[in-house]
Amino acid sequence: MEKGYLDYQSGMPVDPRVVEAMTPYMMEHFGNPAVLHSVGDSAREALEAARAHVAGYVGADPAEIVFTSGATEANNMALKGAAMKLAKKGKHVVSTVVEHRSVITPLKFLEREGFEVTYVPVDRDAFVDPKAVEGAIRDDTILVSVMMANGEVGTIEPAAQIGGIAKAKGVLFHTDAVAAQPSVPIDVSTLPFDLVTLSSNDIYGPKGVGALYIRKGVRVEALVHGGGQERGLRSGTENIPGIVGFGKAAELMKAELESDVARMKPLRDRLMDGILEGIADTTLNGPRDRRLPHNANIRIAYIEGESLLLALDMEGVKVSSGSACSAKTLEPSYVQLAMGIKHEEAHGSLQFTFGRWSTDDDVDLVLAVLPGIVERLRKMSALRPGMEYDKESFGHGHDH
Amino acid sequence: MEKGYLDYQSGMPVDPRVVEAMTPYMMEHFGNPAVLHSVGDSAREALEAARAHVAGYVGADPAEIVFTSGATEANNMALKGAAMKLAKKGKHVVSTVVEHRSVITPLKFLEREGFEVTYVPVDRDAFVDPKAVEGAIRDDTILVSVMMANGEVGTIEPAAQIGGIAKAKGVLFHTDAVAAQPSVPIDVSTLPFDLVTLSSNDIYGPKGVGALYIRKGVRVEALVHGGGQERGLRSGTENIPGIVGFGKAAELMKAELESDVARMKPLRDRLMDGILEGIADTTLNGPRDRRLPHNANIRIAYIEGESLLLALDMEGVKVSSGSACSAKTLEPSYVQLAMGIKHEEAHGSLQFTFGRWSTDDDVDLVLAVLPGIVERLRKMSALRPGMEYDKESFGHGHDH
Repeated sequence: MEKGYLDYQSGMPVDPRVVEAMTPYMMEHFGNPAVLHSVGDSAREALEAARAHVAGYVGADPAEIVFTSGATEANNMALKGAAMKLAKKGKHVVSTVVEHRSVITPLKFLEREGFEVTYVPVDRDAFVDPKAVEGAIRDDTILVSVMMANGEVGTIEPAAQIGGIAKAKGVLFHTDAVAAQPSVPIDVSTLPFDLVTLSSNDIYGPKGVGALYIRKGVRVEALVHGGGQERGLRSGTENIPGIVGFGKAAELMKAELESDVARMKPLRDRLMDGILEGIADTTLNGPRDRRLPHNANIRIAYIEGESLLLALDMEGVKVSSGSACSAKTLEPSYVQLAMGIKHEEAHGSLQFTFGRWSTDDDVDLVLAVLPGIVERLRKMSALRPGMEYDKESFGHGHDH
Repeated sequence: MEKGYLDYQSGMPVDPRVVEAMTPYMMEHFGNPAVLHSVGDSAREALEAARAHVAGYVGADPAEIVFTSGATEANNMALKGAAMKLAKKGKHVVSTVVEHRSVITPLKFLEREGFEVTYVPVDRDAFVDPKAVEGAIRDDTILVSVMMANGEVGTIEPAAQIGGIAKAKGVLFHTDAVAAQPSVPIDVSTLPFDLVTLSSNDIYGPKGVGALYIRKGVRVEALVHGGGQERGLRSGTENIPGIVGFGKAAELMKAELESDVARMKPLRDRLMDGILEGIADTTLNGPRDRRLPHNANIRIAYIEGESLLLALDMEGVKVSSGSACSAKTLEPSYVQLAMGIKHEEAHGSLQFTFGRWSTDDDVDLVLAVLPGIVERLRKMSALRPGMEYDKESFGHGHDH
């Protein structure tokens, strides 16, 4: 990994051990599990071994794992599939304002289809209040969806508590676990989760594959119809190399999560404290406790995140500003706006995410170059306070 | 490739040149195209280069190619996406009885959602009659979907003619081109196709990726919602290694289709004629002309396909009986039943499909072992005519 890469949430390399496990299934063992002859045997065995690894990684039974083309499809399947299945029972869904776009957008789709969605707000640290979720559940509520953690600002949500509330009320509970995967253990054998969205490429597995955990007894409608693969829940010739890679990544993550966190958290803490203590007018976005140990998101006053990001890039530091998905649009992060952070403040945030190959060198580089960049940019910034033209350019004029 | 593999339609290895192109995008160039920093640059460039290759392969503009998780999803997106978009205009769709399951099953879903589908029948060679399609189009018809070729019995359908009829009537035309891809050129710049389903792993590319060609000006609803990738038509972090592999496979297929066919067709002809001439009571399923040059499907009277297939497997010959998807269920092929082939006859079919690594050795092996296997199985067969117990076992008794 090149020094200075601190954007694992946007993109992770595939673990070389995963690539090694996948490659034979592209060339020698390329069989279709559906065929009767022996070339299908290795494909079938590989498919079920991978399913067992993914199940083992989250404490599930293999029969509860349905492979999809990724976490986005799994979120679509969980939300639309459950809503369609339960539409006769009710058409109300409870979720939050800080969900990933692959949850929010399917919910907007459901709203166009006649469902009603209550988006529970969050506090200044992006925490969802379980009581607010409880208060939003109605007689016609069929589904509650709250993420395990917010990958942008690092907040670990009280998903277990909220799942318990949904369970007590007899309402299905879905959680998007993707952002939590690199640094938080997930155990559905003890957690009250009915549907869990899992990603492969957020645990150093290949892109183009993911899974939906569906608790035994829970039924959802299929989203992709065809040959009836995955017990009719997800048709399409199985992406065996991708699934094998996901299985290997899950096996490795189960074994290495603890050591990954033990390595990442001190690095993250040193970076976080180094910036907050070393650079004036910087603020942590999201909580200090109950925070993803591989995430730091820091607001740097008076600067636009995009110019910061590009200046850092020139020094070899790769980070994001806001969520990866919204980064390209240059819109301020809807998560930060939902936390009550002002429009112009939300623009000046940097999101650092650590991963399996992060080292002290990455932190050293950021701490070496960031103060100078901030100083330089603040000198040029229209956002800097106390300068006459700033006030005018922001429309404050002379009225205060 | 191991000698005797003649089941390319069920599963193809990834071309080693494709694997070589993909691997760097798993490890070194793992970036997310959505990020602003330079790590995203190589991902963005790779994504657009692959799009240009896939577009070039079918004579499309790159802006007309939407990447999906595979051909099944592309068929789902074309059919449901077009139906949803045009539901206000009408709710009638015309298709055929011999489409792939990834077309039939989404159509059945649309029927449950209030759409009406006319499934046009086929003749003894599985040909769809363009006049029958024309006759089925009504004022409220919004979509016609007819495959380019049937991968099981090899029939190349008059899709161009049918597309022209749809166009003349102002109705959208979709074709599932997957079965045709290994041996038939596709050129949307001259063919009247509005929506074309394309597979990667049917042209020696990776599994888990496909594309939908959407002619400029044609609009469909998205099936998978989220971060707005692929211009909002297919959300989800782009599977860059898979897409790069598909691009490379498309580039290779465009360059090598002609030489692939020149190599496969004589092998196919020698196998087909060798069996038809060398073994009594064998019949070609599907036409001799206007047939996929890499496909032979032969009915062998008085034997069950499954026992044939397993006996061949023991001799190293890997083939399918019926379609890959129905093979596991041991149901007779719905395609052959639709052609008017009797239930017990349809059970005795062998489907041979050739590919880029097929050689004379594969044909030699089949011609060496098949006659003996057929003779042995026919001796044991309850289906063999003229034996008293046969008639009884099939319930014919003494009444005729």
